[in-house]
Amino acid sequence: MPETRRAIPFSRMGTRLEDPVIAGLMADALNRPDLLSLGAGFTDTASLPADYVAAAYERLRQQSPQPDYLQYGTNWGRAPLREAIAEHLRGFPDEMPGAFTGERTLVTNGSQQGLYLAMQVLCDPGDEVWVEAPSYFVFLELLKGLGITARSLPQSPDGRIDAERLRSELAVRPPKAIYLMGYFANPSSRSIPEEDKRALGAAIAEVAPETVVIEDAAYREMYFETPWPARSILSLPEFESLTCLYAGTLTKPFATGLKIGYVTGNEPELLRAMGRAKAHHDFGTSHFTQAILEEVLKAGDFARSLERVRPLYRARVRALEDALRQGGLPEAGWHWETPLGGLMLWASGPAERDTSQQGTFCRGCLEAGVLYVPGDLCFAEGTPGNSVRLSVGALDETGLQEAARRFCSVAAARS
Amino acid sequence: MPETRRAIPFSRMGTRLEDPVIAGLMADALNRPDLLSLGAGFTDTASLPADYVAAAYERLRQQSPQPDYLQYGTNWGRAPLREAIAEHLRGFPDEMPGAFTGERTLVTNGSQQGLYLAMQVLCDPGDEVWVEAPSYFVFLELLKGLGITARSLPQSPDGRIDAERLRSELAVRPPKAIYLMGYFANPSSRSIPEEDKRALGAAIAEVAPETVVIEDAAYREMYFETPWPARSILSLPEFESLTCLYAGTLTKPFATGLKIGYVTGNEPELLRAMGRAKAHHDFGTSHFTQAILEEVLKAGDFARSLERVRPLYRARVRALEDALRQGGLPEAGWHWETPLGGLMLWASGPAERDTSQQGTFCRGCLEAGVLYVPGDLCFAEGTPGNSVRLSVGALDETGLQEAARRFCSVAAARS
Repeated sequence: MPETRRAIPFSRMGTRLEDPVIAGLMADALNRPDLLSLGAGFTDTASLPADYVAAAYERLRQQSPQPDYLQYGTNWGRAPLREAIAEHLRGFPDEMPGAFTGERTLVTNGSQQGLYLAMQVLCDPGDEVWVEAPSYFVFLELLKGLGITARSLPQSPDGRIDAERLRSELAVRPPKAIYLMGYFANPSSRSIPEEDKRALGAAIAEVAPETVVIEDAAYREMYFETPWPARSILSLPEFESLTCLYAGTLTKPFATGLKIGYVTGNEPELLRAMGRAKAHHDFGTSHFTQAILEEVLKAGDFARSLERVRPLYRARVRALEDALRQGGLPEAGWHWETPLGGLMLWASGPAERDTSQQGTFCRGCLEAGVLYVPGDLCFAEGTPGNSVRLSVGALDETGLQEAARRFCSVAAARS
Repeated sequence: MPETRRAIPFSRMGTRLEDPVIAGLMADALNRPDLLSLGAGFTDTASLPADYVAAAYERLRQQSPQPDYLQYGTNWGRAPLREAIAEHLRGFPDEMPGAFTGERTLVTNGSQQGLYLAMQVLCDPGDEVWVEAPSYFVFLELLKGLGITARSLPQSPDGRIDAERLRSELAVRPPKAIYLMGYFANPSSRSIPEEDKRALGAAIAEVAPETVVIEDAAYREMYFETPWPARSILSLPEFESLTCLYAGTLTKPFATGLKIGYVTGNEPELLRAMGRAKAHHDFGTSHFTQAILEEVLKAGDFARSLERVRPLYRARVRALEDALRQGGLPEAGWHWETPLGGLMLWASGPAERDTSQQGTFCRGCLEAGVLYVPGDLCFAEGTPGNSVRLSVGALDETGLQEAARRFCSVAAARS
């Protein structure tokens, strides 16, 4: 685009905003068609459920004497869809019967809008939100855009939240909110054990009862073999006295292009405020894509589609792991935890390895033709710079093997 | 929903937000199925283009070896769709060839998100935005939610903007932005003559060169017989030195349930900032509905659909006018301007008539079984309380006649 010609009276936010990190990665990928991307968090295109979407659309057309599904919907979303979402969530093992209701479910443009609305109605610029280390880098960017300060939760070296240290830190200055990814987190693919969640809830309830806890469960459905055996924070007694939100998406695990997320929680007044903010954003998510997802859920095709893709993503992640091992990555001082779900592998190199976008390792990978998400983008501060997020959605197993080969060659050459 | 149990640490915005006015109107309508709604700004459901949408979807499926249309898109939107939008806008009479480009077009969740993003990156709480009197009530609510102060532009009694008074008022304290609806405005159905736009542009350029001008053209396509013969601000020389935005929607005039809007303008740096904010909201509008609209535009079905609905809305508005005249509304001291496009009629009663939601007239209408949008909601301040917005999208001609009969009976009884 041409350059700026006029003086623009930006707001503080307008001045503060930066280009999304992923935009830079995408630009790299577009300029280099030979580049193999372990960076983008895409899902596998070939296995997207074109059949289930077509069937849902066909039923919609047959069932609707008038094309209501092309008309405006309401701000909160279609009532039967909200009920279907709640029913789906109640289907996870051992959730409390009352933990999820359609009434308390707000349909959003992906789970991300739910997180954004929560931050808008809870935080003023300068407020603090605590996050895991690592955490979802788009959430960190979103906080920065709103002028909110992110800070890492105290964690042990193996990534588990240290409830005792948390208790003492919370007592000093409690944040507005704590943001967790309980299930196959982006980027770490870690899940939080139920006992850790409960210790966390007890600590917060004791010393910071006003701090809002947000569980982002975007990858919960994307387990490889069995659901992660921990209830959501909405079903755990330690969180009962706390204000809790739970954000999820119907389309990350189904068809990302439909972009239907949701947010629910235990405090109607907070959800109402988020709904009011959503009315200003857009007055409701596309009614058409909502209607399609509603049909998909009702027919059981959401679950069927997941059954189809789970082995695929499992095989992808295992293929990537195998190729990284065959390429000698462990011998080069790298390690990772084997993911049990999700779309990515979080790998850490030797302590002195700098994996940042500006570093020689990242440049070496680009030269070798492989793209990853630098780990330092996923930390609120303190930035350990020796990790990478590798995603398996965009490449098939052959592509992953070649990408791993390239990655390992750079890691070996420079270790 | 159950009542609040926990103390919520709301932000200033969270505290400030109010329920949307339309939510109250909708609740009234839902509780009273006998109520005839002249309130909701819906489009006619029966004439929504189910056929064109189905054809677009079928072509998408046929053309896509893999279902890319169900995959994530980019934050800015599909490049060919952005090009198609620019081409569509260049098709209006006498627009400058360079006024609209795909590169400078950001796809949004309806035009409303474009307005929201603009306000976020331009205005801090306490800043001022000037609007027409009356103006779009959802925009006024959105400003309030963001803590922005709305103020009415100086206008003559017939609703035309008074450029001379504007010049002197601007010189005192220029606002961050001026918001205009140039074409068949919501709620007034008025359009701005090109000479008035140019006088306005000249005044702003002279005394408030940093004030951003936003033209909301959501109803531009919805003329009854001929396009409104005024170019957009992006093609007028008086606006060339000013920073300008132009917001529109593909789905208000086609299929509201698909919710695809766009915003464009003459200043890349402003659009880039809005794109950065959008990346935080949702990282891109549904790729699926974008792909469908792209097919619809490419096939010429967008224009065909409009040709189909224009006579329908024209007949609706004329039927409403006839019925109001037959019901004796002019004799009861009411008047209105005959709309040349759009979906609504803006009618004003005798000066002493109080049409607000709390007033006896509004209650009388509800008792008689007819719903309207109170005019006072559409003013930044000063609130003339004797107008109503009557919409024709939700009722057919028979329904409009009965609604008008009810409305007139209340107007006659109390005049």
